[in-house]
Amino acid sequence: MQSTLLARQRTAPEVRRTTPYLALDPTVVERRFHALAAALPGAEVHYAVKANPHPAVLEALVGCGSRFDVATPAEVRAALAAGADPGDLVCSHPVKRREDVAEAHALGVRLFVVDSPAETRKVAQAAPGSAVLCRLATTGAGSEWPLSGKFGVSPVQAVEILLEAARLGLEAAGVCFHVGSQQRDPEAWAAPVRDASRVLAALRHSGLSPWLLDLGGGFPARYSHDAPPLAAYGAAIERALQEGFGTGGRPRVLVEPGRGLVGDAGTLVTSVVGVVERGPREAPVRWVFLDAGVFTGLVETLGEAIRYRLRTDRSGPTGPCVLAGPTCDSADVLYEREPVELPLALAEGDLVRLEAAGAYTSSCSSVGFNGYAPLPTHLTRDTGA
Amino acid sequence: MQSTLLARQRTAPEVRRTTPYLALDPTVVERRFHALAAALPGAEVHYAVKANPHPAVLEALVGCGSRFDVATPAEVRAALAAGADPGDLVCSHPVKRREDVAEAHALGVRLFVVDSPAETRKVAQAAPGSAVLCRLATTGAGSEWPLSGKFGVSPVQAVEILLEAARLGLEAAGVCFHVGSQQRDPEAWAAPVRDASRVLAALRHSGLSPWLLDLGGGFPARYSHDAPPLAAYGAAIERALQEGFGTGGRPRVLVEPGRGLVGDAGTLVTSVVGVVERGPREAPVRWVFLDAGVFTGLVETLGEAIRYRLRTDRSGPTGPCVLAGPTCDSADVLYEREPVELPLALAEGDLVRLEAAGAYTSSCSSVGFNGYAPLPTHLTRDTGA
Repeated sequence: MQSTLLARQRTAPEVRRTTPYLALDPTVVERRFHALAAALPGAEVHYAVKANPHPAVLEALVGCGSRFDVATPAEVRAALAAGADPGDLVCSHPVKRREDVAEAHALGVRLFVVDSPAETRKVAQAAPGSAVLCRLATTGAGSEWPLSGKFGVSPVQAVEILLEAARLGLEAAGVCFHVGSQQRDPEAWAAPVRDASRVLAALRHSGLSPWLLDLGGGFPARYSHDAPPLAAYGAAIERALQEGFGTGGRPRVLVEPGRGLVGDAGTLVTSVVGVVERGPREAPVRWVFLDAGVFTGLVETLGEAIRYRLRTDRSGPTGPCVLAGPTCDSADVLYEREPVELPLALAEGDLVRLEAAGAYTSSCSSVGFNGYAPLPTHLTRDTGA
Repeated sequence: MQSTLLARQRTAPEVRRTTPYLALDPTVVERRFHALAAALPGAEVHYAVKANPHPAVLEALVGCGSRFDVATPAEVRAALAAGADPGDLVCSHPVKRREDVAEAHALGVRLFVVDSPAETRKVAQAAPGSAVLCRLATTGAGSEWPLSGKFGVSPVQAVEILLEAARLGLEAAGVCFHVGSQQRDPEAWAAPVRDASRVLAALRHSGLSPWLLDLGGGFPARYSHDAPPLAAYGAAIERALQEGFGTGGRPRVLVEPGRGLVGDAGTLVTSVVGVVERGPREAPVRWVFLDAGVFTGLVETLGEAIRYRLRTDRSGPTGPCVLAGPTCDSADVLYEREPVELPLALAEGDLVRLEAAGAYTSSCSSVGFNGYAPLPTHLTRDTGA
């Protein structure tokens, strides 16, 4: 039945749904999982549920043998509902609500991230006996220490925190870090892996037996700016691990891809609400208004951080356009500083597809700001991905 | 019954609800409505539903005799459900979905904003015979023309658009503008009122009979930075209207306050998830993590644009703190560039109240990013406002 429906969709792509919506293809998630697993042999893959918690994504990944990275009891329950084993979850949020730690523990989670003495005590009390990873801050190029940053500590502090964890009856499992989402430089893992190797060596020197290194996420989706293939990430990380740990002392390794698995699996399908010219007649600026925007799933366009690839059914000459969302809010503008190129023939009612929009879209949609409903998801194999 | 409950809440404020939530007091909205109406005698007040569409807010305002500013059919239906008359609504969104225009028209809306020839044709087709206002772009100080800007046209373009509207069978009612949300300068209305008077004079010269001037919103809530009292806005606007139209030719005037009516009526009540020190030991930075953040109603802290006043139950010495939200997302940081002063005794589990959080919070909350539920609203008279 389902495959018949899918086949019909493929043969009749002109059947139009109400926009906006996220067209999500779980088979792309599966392909990306296998590609990443192949690029990182020996690493366990824990999908970061926050990127897209749709049950079809989680179920497809359970079928692939994926593990999961979760932050909250709601994410734990979503992973378990999809068939995951609680022992295969890492709760990687470094500053958690105490009741959330207790609830995750009650649901069977036994691996938590910390990055402060207070959080270590919290986990020791709310999830006694669990294993913990301490999160390292990542150093920016040419910077000795990131002077701000929401999560992470120095290697020296990590050693102290993990020694304290052991004193509190926790298992000092190792360290984790995050090189930043949509990381386009495969060499970004090299320095934090070196830091991690120093922390693990110091812990061993103190009589502990750390065994786990969590390399975080950062693997890219295919947006407008090219990123290297996953194989380049695998090769760079393998070099870093060899340099950091040699052949004998390498810990078990896990990664936490979110965007890297689900980003390319979604297409955000929007319609043009209007095309208008702004500014003086002698130098007009073309504005294209879509029916999805910052409050309907495109929050990552804030600051023009994530630049989605655009696809339309129009051909012919193109011109620069400012792209705006549907609400009355003046902040609901997607790309203005660096306009997008769109066909000049684009008109009201035309579809504009934002590709590689599977991550951080549907779950980030507002509950209904300005009367625009939350972004729905439709499962399909017709994402154009 | 309700007043008994409210009395109990006032006498027993220590009864603790699960955080985070928005504590919303519709009686504050009523007070602000009457204060604004008194400051602007003769102006019709149309509450901007997008600021907070909670039924209790809309019903309280209907009781005050308020009219409404809406953008979408969902907002039209919310206003009608609260008892508003469709003839008292202005659909002030300048670029609307065609089907939304038709639906609003079917629901009885007869006043629409446009700011382009294409939108004018759209309204003429989807809401034939309606009255239209053309939105003017507001000029920044020292700027002849805003080179970007999502909405609004020049006075010359507005005249052309309204003449075209009349040719298409629409009623060229007048013009509207918006001086920017949380406008702290009451003189900001002076220049656009002058522009408006030129447009209306030109239309009269062409034989039309424009009769309406929509002064938009921009009236402030009480955040960290002081804004003048509403009376100062009323006085400045009255001066501008006298200068622009004299005593005889003044059009009917309406305003569209959102934040100015509902902002002060809400308190976002959060709990401290953790307090940690970041950075090197010799110069640590104190981070306070709350259980509400950018994805749970505090989207207007992005760029640190809106600075809420904070209140805690702790006393004693204070120090600068970075304030962060609960999700794993590194963008979920409320105030970092300019830290907030909070008691050094503040600890996990303490309440932190963000005051004047009634506008653009609950309706902007995400559907559940990272497993954090959307921000709920509790009606109360104990907002501390």
